[in-house]
Amino acid sequence: VDQLKVAVLGVGLIGGSIGLACRARAGAHVTGWDVDPGARERARERGAIDEAVTEIPVVVDGADIVFAAVPVSQLVPTVKVALTWAGPETIVTDVGSTKREIIEAISDRRFIGGHPLAGSELSGVTHAREDLFEGARWFLCDGDGACAGAGDAGASREGRKRLEDLIATFGAEPVTIDAGVHDRLMATVSQLPHVLANLLVAQASGEGEGMDVGDDSRSPIVGPSFRDATRVAGSNSAIWTDIYMSNREALLAAIDELIPRLERVRVLLREGDAEALTEWNEQARAQRKAVLGEAAGGADRP
Amino acid sequence: VDQLKVAVLGVGLIGGSIGLACRARAGAHVTGWDVDPGARERARERGAIDEAVTEIPVVVDGADIVFAAVPVSQLVPTVKVALTWAGPETIVTDVGSTKREIIEAISDRRFIGGHPLAGSELSGVTHAREDLFEGARWFLCDGDGACAGAGDAGASREGRKRLEDLIATFGAEPVTIDAGVHDRLMATVSQLPHVLANLLVAQASGEGEGMDVGDDSRSPIVGPSFRDATRVAGSNSAIWTDIYMSNREALLAAIDELIPRLERVRVLLREGDAEALTEWNEQARAQRKAVLGEAAGGADRP
Repeated sequence: VDQLKVAVLGVGLIGGSIGLACRARAGAHVTGWDVDPGARERARERGAIDEAVTEIPVVVDGADIVFAAVPVSQLVPTVKVALTWAGPETIVTDVGSTKREIIEAISDRRFIGGHPLAGSELSGVTHAREDLFEGARWFLCDGDGACAGAGDAGASREGRKRLEDLIATFGAEPVTIDAGVHDRLMATVSQLPHVLANLLVAQASGEGEGMDVGDDSRSPIVGPSFRDATRVAGSNSAIWTDIYMSNREALLAAIDELIPRLERVRVLLREGDAEALTEWNEQARAQRKAVLGEAAGGADRP
Repeated sequence: VDQLKVAVLGVGLIGGSIGLACRARAGAHVTGWDVDPGARERARERGAIDEAVTEIPVVVDGADIVFAAVPVSQLVPTVKVALTWAGPETIVTDVGSTKREIIEAISDRRFIGGHPLAGSELSGVTHAREDLFEGARWFLCDGDGACAGAGDAGASREGRKRLEDLIATFGAEPVTIDAGVHDRLMATVSQLPHVLANLLVAQASGEGEGMDVGDDSRSPIVGPSFRDATRVAGSNSAIWTDIYMSNREALLAAIDELIPRLERVRVLLREGDAEALTEWNEQARAQRKAVLGEAAGGADRP
C-alpha cells in the first residue's frame, strides 16, 4: 500500500501529538506548518513531523489528510486556505474545542469537523506525546448535522473511513455527534468548569469581600479539594478566550441553567432540610458515576 | 518528663491519624473511644490507640489532651460529656470543619476549637496515616474570638501551648483564627466547591435538560479537567450533610456572592468582550497563585 500522507497545520501540543502518532502508529509521512518558525523547527527535532514547510499551499499538496490544529479563532481561515489548495480526494479536518462555528462557516464536502477529548494545560510541541489520544473519544461532525457514514457521496464516505481508521490507530474512538449537541455538551463539561474555577479562586482570594485571614503562615489555607477543583483556573488565555468567544451562546445557556440549580440548593440550605441535602448529595454521587462511565465508587477516593 | 496522655473520641480517618501521630511522634499513650465497637477494634489493631475504651468518662480520665473527632453533628454533645469528666487541667479540642456553632455552644476555658486542613474522601481508621497532617494548617480558635496566647488565665495558656506543641510534632502548623472568619473561609474554599461539583455532575448528567449524547461508546464524554473539577461530587453524605447544615449561614452567603460573579461573566460573554475575558482569566491565574501560596505557575500544569 502507498504510504499515507498527512499534513499538520499548527504543531503545538495537539498537532505535534498527531504528528508523532501518525508517524509511530500509521507509518505516515507527515509534513508540518506553523506560523511560528521556532515551533516548526522544534516539531522536526522532536520527530513530530518529517518535514517543516513554510507555506500552507505546499504543505497540503498531495496530502491524504490535513489536520488543522491552530487556535480556535484561526481555524476557519486556516481550513479555508487548506481547502483551496488541497486535492479533490483530500480530507481536511480540525481539532477545535467548539464545532458549530466552523461547521457553519465551511461548506465543503472534503471537510469533517473533529475534536479529540485529550490534552492538558501543558502546551507546545515539547509536551506532545504519541499516546496522547489513547482511550480518548474523538468527536467527528460535518455540516449535515447527521454525519458519519450517512454521507451522500462515495468520495466523502471513503475519506471519512480513512480519517476514522487513522484516529483508531491513535488508540482513540471516533464518535459522530451533531455540532450543536457537541457545543452544548462542551459548554457544560469543559467551559463551565473553567468559568467556575476562575470564579472560585476570585472569591477565595477575597476579591471584593473581606476574605483575608490576616496571617503570614506558611501552610496553605486551602486543602487538596480546592486545589483540584480550581486546577484549570486561569488556563492559557491564548486558547481559552477563543473557546469562550466561539462557544459563548452555549456557555451562556449553561450558566443560565446553573443559576437556578444554585437557587435550589440555597432553598434546601435556608430551610435546613438535612434529608433533602443528603438525597441531593447521593444523587450527585450516582450522577458522577454515570457521567464518568464508572462501574463503582462515587468520588474518586470513596 | 511524664508520658503525654491523649484521648481520642471517634477513631475514623482523622481520629485514627491523630492517634498514630501521637504515638509515633510524641511517644504519647493514647486511649480511644468510638460509638462503633468495630472501629475501636480496628483502631487498636492498626496501632492508632494503645487502649480501646467503651465509655467516654473512662477514656478522658487522666488525659492531658482530648481530641473529639466525631461527625460534626455529634461534636457538641460529645465535647460536653468529655468536659464533664475531664480534669481541671485537661485540654479538650475538636477537629470539626465548622467552628462557630461549637464555639458558641461550649463555654469552658478548657475547650479550644480546632480544625486541621487535612483529610481526603477516604474515611475510616483503615486509611489513617501518621503523616496525614504533615505541612497542613491546623486552625485553632476559642470563644473569645481573640484566641491564641491572649488567654487571660495561666491554665488555659499552658494548655494551649501543650496543644500547639503536640500539633507541631504532627508536622502541622497551628494557626489562630476567629471562628466566624474560619467558617466564611471554609464556606468559600471547601463547601462551595463541593456544592459546585454536585451541580456540575447533575448538569452534565442531563438531569432536566437534554444532554444525552445518545451513543453507547466506551470512551468517556468528559476529559481530565471535568474529572478533577468534580472529584468531590457526592462525597460521604454522613459527613457532608452535617457540614452543610452546621455552616449553612456562611455557605448561603458564599452562594449569594457567587451568583453575581456568574452574572458578570455572563455580561462579558453576551457582549463578546474578548479583551475583558482575557483580563478576567489572567486575573484568575494570579488569584489562584495567591490563594495556593505558589511562587510560580498558574494552573497546576502551566
